Amino acid sequence: MGISKRALIKTAAAAVTATVGSLMAPAIATANHHNKTKLPIVLVHGAWHGAWCYERVIPHLAQLGHASVARDLPAHGLNARFPASYSKRPLDPAAFGTEPSPVAATTLDDYVNSILQTIRELRSEGHDKVILVGHSMGGVPITEVAERAPEMIAHLVYLTAFMPASGVPGVAYISAPENKGELVAPQLMADPMKIGALRMDHRSTHPDYRANAKRAFYADVSNEDFDAVANLLTPDVPVGPFATPITTTAERWGSVRRHYIKCLQDQAIMPALQQRFIDEADAAVRSRPTVVHQMNTSHSPFMSQPRALAEILARIASS
Amino acid sequence: MGISKRALIKTAAAAVTATVGSLMAPAIATANHHNKTKLPIVLVHGAWHGAWCYERVIPHLAQLGHASVARDLPAHGLNARFPASYSKRPLDPAAFGTEPSPVAATTLDDYVNSILQTIRELRSEGHDKVILVGHSMGGVPITEVAERAPEMIAHLVYLTAFMPASGVPGVAYISAPENKGELVAPQLMADPMKIGALRMDHRSTHPDYRANAKRAFYADVSNEDFDAVANLLTPDVPVGPFATPITTTAERWGSVRRHYIKCLQDQAIMPALQQRFIDEADAAVRSRPTVVHQMNTSHSPFMSQPRALAEILARIASS
Repeated sequence: MGISKRALIKTAAAAVTATVGSLMAPAIATANHHNKTKLPIVLVHGAWHGAWCYERVIPHLAQLGHASVARDLPAHGLNARFPASYSKRPLDPAAFGTEPSPVAATTLDDYVNSILQTIRELRSEGHDKVILVGHSMGGVPITEVAERAPEMIAHLVYLTAFMPASGVPGVAYISAPENKGELVAPQLMADPMKIGALRMDHRSTHPDYRANAKRAFYADVSNEDFDAVANLLTPDVPVGPFATPITTTAERWGSVRRHYIKCLQDQAIMPALQQRFIDEADAAVRSRPTVVHQMNTSHSPFMSQPRALAEILARIASS
Repeated sequence: MGISKRALIKTAAAAVTATVGSLMAPAIATANHHNKTKLPIVLVHGAWHGAWCYERVIPHLAQLGHASVARDLPAHGLNARFPASYSKRPLDPAAFGTEPSPVAATTLDDYVNSILQTIRELRSEGHDKVILVGHSMGGVPITEVAERAPEMIAHLVYLTAFMPASGVPGVAYISAPENKGELVAPQLMADPMKIGALRMDHRSTHPDYRANAKRAFYADVSNEDFDAVANLLTPDVPVGPFATPITTTAERWGSVRRHYIKCLQDQAIMPALQQRFIDEADAAVRSRPTVVHQMNTSHSPFMSQPRALAEILARIASS
């Protein structure tokens, strides 16, 4: 064959290199361009909000290489339902304060099934695990989701969120001493246990009521941005998911890498309460302490510091 | 080295196969599982709406293998700005009918740049082309986007949308004979040319006004879903983008595969006007006629028939 062993080895090596090179190029391109090795992020909104609240975070996450998905929870966003008294103006406070909520029957299971469905969709697209983020009230259902399906979650992220201890309903924390000074409860316009919902009037024409709502949730955004947010909020949040205790175990919920993003200027969930959630979780799962991140924002960094929030989530993903 | 040429060839060939095989496996898995061969879809909403209106379509598109992205246009959704008179109740029709719009300065360029930015983000993630969908007023900016950047768009889809002929501003079609019977113009509560916006009162407590709004846009959704939609709508749509004529050419805009999804029960853009858009486009670009699809829906199939709409978009993608 007129070819030396040395030449043959060189030829074979070149063939391997060339073949692998040409085949690898698209693979590497795929990995880089589509960033398919990066974990997708499921963003769960809080009470009175909808998927829309993550609108300004999602493009930053995309720039950082992360697909992300936000969906309206049951009874929120396009799934919201309204007491008839909400659309009557001027508002009749007595009617608004007593009308049973049309979302009173919504359960924690409804929230959890909605989130699990979103995660399963991502899994059917080839993602084994997701990063699951819950803001505020959204911390309640993500806790139950992680207890039921820890194998689907790479990181569990509480964004100034309820992270209730096992067996303690979320609602129990609202009046905790660590939450003293919070500005949300005074905004409620009906007895939640009587109407089945946490009810607010986002259309209030009282300057004080509106200013307090902004202070509670959006102190660090412009008035113009807050007006746009307030237009999208919905009045009734089902009380059931908040009142349902969740049993968490170290083996399941506790096995997931757990992060807490503290928002230091938050006046809806006070920083001391955020720290209590962390302390209780760490006492329950000593082998895996909460990884704590901090933002110097109000309750709503997705509006006031969307880029910084996206960068924290991207760092969590690569940790 | 005690090795024959034949053995060396076999070894080298095995090395190539094994190496290529192990390297290819993840690449193929990536392509299949993440459906990265399928075109991503950019969904542009219409007037008074926001990205939120596609909430129920996006999960169906994901199930069909398509990533999709919806964003709030300038002056819409979280970018909306409100006349002060909108928040005063009972409404003062004289004030609401004359207050200059805070979004009056928003231009067609603003819309177009926002859409181009979203498309460029997808391109930076490795997608050469997208499917660009515009609903209703969204047809105006996608027309300009396609004229500027036809190379980025695999299919241009008008969803019961304005598809203005070259040099004719969108607004000229509203009072066209083909649009007789439309129910939108009677809902406007101010002279657009005086205040700089198309203004509606989505919080109206007049049963007739509200019923007409539902008939105009959402005749085939439940009252409960319409209430949730109406809560998210914003009052002012900048008149500038509607009043700006767009010059389109057969070489650029006309070179993109063009689809029109007719909505046969639409009372916002009447079916006869939808057909006029198609006829004018086909007269302008004889070499590439509009591909026409039909849905037996109101103006808003993303709410009334989200699955069917997703299936049409998926068929367009594979056509």
